[in-house]
Amino acid sequence: MFRYNERMRKNVHGSSCDLPASLRSRKNNRSRRYPFQGDFTWKGVRAEDYKTGGSDWEGILRQVIIGSRGETAKFSLRYFEIAPGGYSSHETHEHEHVVVGIRGEGKALMNRRAVRVGFLDVVYVSPGTPHRLFNPFSEPFGFFCIVNRERDHPRPVGR
Amino acid sequence: MFRYNERMRKNVHGSSCDLPASLRSRKNNRSRRYPFQGDFTWKGVRAEDYKTGGSDWEGILRQVIIGSRGETAKFSLRYFEIAPGGYSSHETHEHEHVVVGIRGEGKALMNRRAVRVGFLDVVYVSPGTPHRLFNPFSEPFGFFCIVNRERDHPRPVGR
Repeated sequence: MFRYNERMRKNVHGSSCDLPASLRSRKNNRSRRYPFQGDFTWKGVRAEDYKTGGSDWEGILRQVIIGSRGETAKFSLRYFEIAPGGYSSHETHEHEHVVVGIRGEGKALMNRRAVRVGFLDVVYVSPGTPHRLFNPFSEPFGFFCIVNRERDHPRPVGR
Repeated sequence: MFRYNERMRKNVHGSSCDLPASLRSRKNNRSRRYPFQGDFTWKGVRAEDYKTGGSDWEGILRQVIIGSRGETAKFSLRYFEIAPGGYSSHETHEHEHVVVGIRGEGKALMNRRAVRVGFLDVVYVSPGTPHRLFNPFSEPFGFFCIVNRERDHPRPVGR
């Protein structure tokens, strides 16, 4: 099973956790730079599990780069990394995904068709399309996934 | 002055231009893959000028990857490329920018502070922050810029 290094897990956003939510929100809606650290982590961004529950996924970590720290944009920018052999939930929802490959390569299953997602390939997953991202290759597969900030809950496919 | 090659300019999206707008919209809200072609173009995406008017910018081309072909997401994904010595308008607006460097390096002026934007660095430009992207380096500077689909018009700064 795939694990990130400790640096990745401990890389929590500064000291803003001590502020009341309203101040924290205003503070974090300021313009800000998140430097890429070369190892597919961003300074000030914490790695988390893909989901807190469920058993229909394997070997994925998530980093929410924009969208969880008081930003007012109507979208979120997340980075997901799928270990070799890993896969996301097979699911559908009414919101869209925009996926951009940035590390290694993987595949996106959309309806019954699997397409390759390589470096800077962009994939648009339209509302109601059953989909799953997976990594049948031997290197980590990392991608940005942009979504609406307000979105519906995913529904599992085929259960 | 910086120019793209002819391939980039002619790379117009398929044959959908012949369809009525309603059909075109439904057709283009389907799931779709935009393969990266290695030269910072995407198959099915056309390069355009940064803006149709104005004289406060120089040496920029834009490619709207997601957001102009009937997609229903509440955001647009664009790629901009600034030639050496080029710059965007110095402007402010109420919508946010999320900038992700993917080619070369450049700078983002936000208020009076210029920060470096290198490969996969992420910059959040908050509402009302006067800003300009520019390229003081000798290689092209390319970046994704994600914005809300519905957004206010920019206002020039300092005029």
